[in-house]
Amino acid sequence: MVNRIFRYELPTTIEFGNGAVQTLPQHVRALGGTKVLIVSDPGVLRAGVVDRLTAPLQENQLPFVIFSEIEPDPNIDSVDTATVLAKSEGCDLIVGVGGGSSLDTAKAVGLMLANEGNIRDYVGINKVPRRGAPVIAVPTTAGTGSELTIWSVLSDKKAKAKLSVGSAYNCPTLALCDPELTVSLPAPITAATGMDALTHALESYVNKATQPISEGMSLQAMKMIARNLRTAVVQGENLAARHDMLLASLIAAMAFNPTRLGLAHALAMPLGAQFKIPHGTVNAILLPEVMAFNLVGNLEKFKEIAGIFGEKTDHLSLREAAERSVSAIRQLKADIGITQTLSDYGVTENDLDAIVEEAMLSGNVPVNPVKPTLEDLKQICRAAMSASSALAN
Amino acid sequence: MVNRIFRYELPTTIEFGNGAVQTLPQHVRALGGTKVLIVSDPGVLRAGVVDRLTAPLQENQLPFVIFSEIEPDPNIDSVDTATVLAKSEGCDLIVGVGGGSSLDTAKAVGLMLANEGNIRDYVGINKVPRRGAPVIAVPTTAGTGSELTIWSVLSDKKAKAKLSVGSAYNCPTLALCDPELTVSLPAPITAATGMDALTHALESYVNKATQPISEGMSLQAMKMIARNLRTAVVQGENLAARHDMLLASLIAAMAFNPTRLGLAHALAMPLGAQFKIPHGTVNAILLPEVMAFNLVGNLEKFKEIAGIFGEKTDHLSLREAAERSVSAIRQLKADIGITQTLSDYGVTENDLDAIVEEAMLSGNVPVNPVKPTLEDLKQICRAAMSASSALAN
Repeated sequence: MVNRIFRYELPTTIEFGNGAVQTLPQHVRALGGTKVLIVSDPGVLRAGVVDRLTAPLQENQLPFVIFSEIEPDPNIDSVDTATVLAKSEGCDLIVGVGGGSSLDTAKAVGLMLANEGNIRDYVGINKVPRRGAPVIAVPTTAGTGSELTIWSVLSDKKAKAKLSVGSAYNCPTLALCDPELTVSLPAPITAATGMDALTHALESYVNKATQPISEGMSLQAMKMIARNLRTAVVQGENLAARHDMLLASLIAAMAFNPTRLGLAHALAMPLGAQFKIPHGTVNAILLPEVMAFNLVGNLEKFKEIAGIFGEKTDHLSLREAAERSVSAIRQLKADIGITQTLSDYGVTENDLDAIVEEAMLSGNVPVNPVKPTLEDLKQICRAAMSASSALAN
Repeated sequence: MVNRIFRYELPTTIEFGNGAVQTLPQHVRALGGTKVLIVSDPGVLRAGVVDRLTAPLQENQLPFVIFSEIEPDPNIDSVDTATVLAKSEGCDLIVGVGGGSSLDTAKAVGLMLANEGNIRDYVGINKVPRRGAPVIAVPTTAGTGSELTIWSVLSDKKAKAKLSVGSAYNCPTLALCDPELTVSLPAPITAATGMDALTHALESYVNKATQPISEGMSLQAMKMIARNLRTAVVQGENLAARHDMLLASLIAAMAFNPTRLGLAHALAMPLGAQFKIPHGTVNAILLPEVMAFNLVGNLEKFKEIAGIFGEKTDHLSLREAAERSVSAIRQLKADIGITQTLSDYGVTENDLDAIVEEAMLSGNVPVNPVKPTLEDLKQICRAAMSASSALAN
C-alpha cells in the first residue's frame, strides 16, 4: 500500500503503429492547425525522415515551414529562434520529429507560442502558467520518451549546464509513434537510447515516489527491453524489435512522468553537459554502478529485475539474487557494444567535487531508494570511470 | 508486435489515496465549479459516505444539491430527472459517489448538461458530439472502473435491456479515489465487484484488441487482485487490501478502456438485465466457463494467468498449465463465497436463445480470442447454470 495521495495523469494522446505517420494530416486538422512548424535536426532531415512527414502534408494542402537546426544537447537559444520563426510565419501547430533534442525543443516552442517572456523564465517544475500551442511529437529514437514526458531538457552552452522545464503543459498533445521511422537508426544510437529507456523504467521502478500504476508500466517496459534491445541493435532492420523498443520507451515514460528517476539521471545531467557525453551513453555507463549502490533499498525489486533480464535466482539468497540484476545489466551493456567509461570522456577525480555537488541538487535525488552522501556519489562516479565497470562480472 | 495502428488515451486525471476525498473542494474550484450536483444512491447516503463529501464542501462554502435516488442497474430515466434538477438548481459540476450505477448516471448527467436531446440519442460508441460539464467520480466499490471508463451502462426497465453510452467525453474529468470509503462495503459486494475488476483485467488481457500498454496494466491489476481480493472480502477492515483492490480496479479500467472485453461481458449484459443478476456476480459466474472456452485462443497467456493466481505449472504441459488458470479462478470464487449459478437466478434452457442472440450483437464479441457460434454461447451458459461450475475442481 502506498501511504500517500498520488496523482496520475496522461495529457498526451498516443497513436502508435507501423505507418502511423501517414495519419499526420488528419491529426493536424483535428487539432485546428492551419500552418505547421516542423522542428528537427540535420541528421533526421538528411536521412529523409522529414520527407515522410512533409509528403502527406503536401498531399493534403497543409502548409509547413521546416526548422532543422537542432543540435544534440539542444541549445536553449534555439527555442527563441524557432519561436520567432513560427510567429513570423504564422504557424499555429508544432511538429517535432527526431530524438529527444528535437522533441524537447519543439515542446518548448509550443509553450512559447502561448506564454510571455523567455523559456528561461520557466526552468523548474510547474512554472508554466498557460497551455501552449498544440504539439505533435514524432520520435525517431526509442529512448528519451520525450514524446509524452513533461520535460524539456535544454543546454546553456556558455554555462555548460542543462536546464529542465517540467510542466503538464509541456506534454505533447499527440505522440505519433511510427516504428518504421526508427529502422534506419545506427546501432550505437539504438544501444544508447535503448539504455536510456531502460534507465527510465528501472529508476522509476525502484524509487520512493513510485506507485502501482507506474510499477506495472515499468515492469512491462523492462520486459520488452529485455526481449528486444539486443535484437534491435544487432538487427537494425528487424521491425518487430524496433516496434517493441519504441513502445517500451513510451511505456517507460508513462511510468516515470509522475515519479521522477534516480541517481543515474541526477549524475547524467552535469556529466552530460560538461563532458559532452550523449545522454543515453552516460546513463548506460552509470546505471549498473547506481544499481549496485541502490540494491539495499529494495532487494526484492532488484531480484525481480534480475529475473526479467533472464537470471536464474531460485538457488540464491535474496541478496545474491538482487546482485544478479547488476551483472545482467552489465552483460546487456556489453552485448550491445557500450564499453565506454567516464574516463574515456575525460572525467577525472578532480572533476568530481563539482559534478556531485550539482547532481545533489537534482529532483531525482530525494526519490532515490537510498539517500546518498556526496562521497557516495563520488564513489559511483569512480566506479563508472574504471574499465572494470564496462565488463560483465 | 501489434500489427496495426492503435490509440491510447487517458482523459481522466487520477487522484488516489487514503483521505483523498478531503481534497474535493480544491478540485471543484480548480475545475471552475460553483454549485455541485451530487449523484448517489440511498445505501451510500445511509452509510454516511455522502456526508464525507458534503462536510468539506460546506467548510469551503461550496453549495451543493444531492440526488440520491440511483438504483442498481440504474434507470436511464434517472439521467433525465437528475439533468432537470441540475439545470433548475444551476449546478455546473457533477460529483458521482457510489458504485457503478451512481457513477454511470453522474457521467451521463455531465454529458447532458452540454449536449442536446436525450441520453438515449447517444447510445452506442462515439456518438456524443460535445464534451460535457466537469464530472468528479468518487468510487465506493472496487470493481466497475466507471471512475475512468468511457462507458455508462443504463437500464431500460420496460424493455429489460441495458443501453451503453461509450465516448471519450464520457470519461470523468477526475477520478477521486479514497480507499477509506470502501472499508464499510459488505463482503458479498466486495466479492462480486472484485470479480468484476478481475473480469475486466483478464478479458482485456486475452482479447484480440489488446496491445502492450493495456497488457502491462492487466498484468498489474491481476497480480494485485490475486494478492488482495480474498483479504478484502474476509477482512473488510483491512485498509491495505482495500487500497490495493481499489487501485487494481482502476488499473484494470486503464487496461480495458481502449480494448473492450470478451464473452463474459457480452453475456452479462442481457443476463443481468433480464434476470436482475448483479453485474459483478454474473461476471463471476460466467468467467471460468468463458476462460475454459477461450483457452485455445492463447495458451501462453492463460498459463501466465495461472501463475499469477499461484498455480505451480512448471511440471505441466502448456495445455495443462493453461487449464490451471480456470481451476484457480474457480477456487478464488469459492473462497470469496460466490457459489451462485445462473439457475439460482431463474435462467433456464428456454431462455438461452434470446440471451445468446442479444449477446452476439455485443461489441465485446469481435475482440474475443475465440470466435463463438450461438451454440458455443449456449454451452457457456449451460455450464454456468450447473452447480458443478461453482465448485473448485
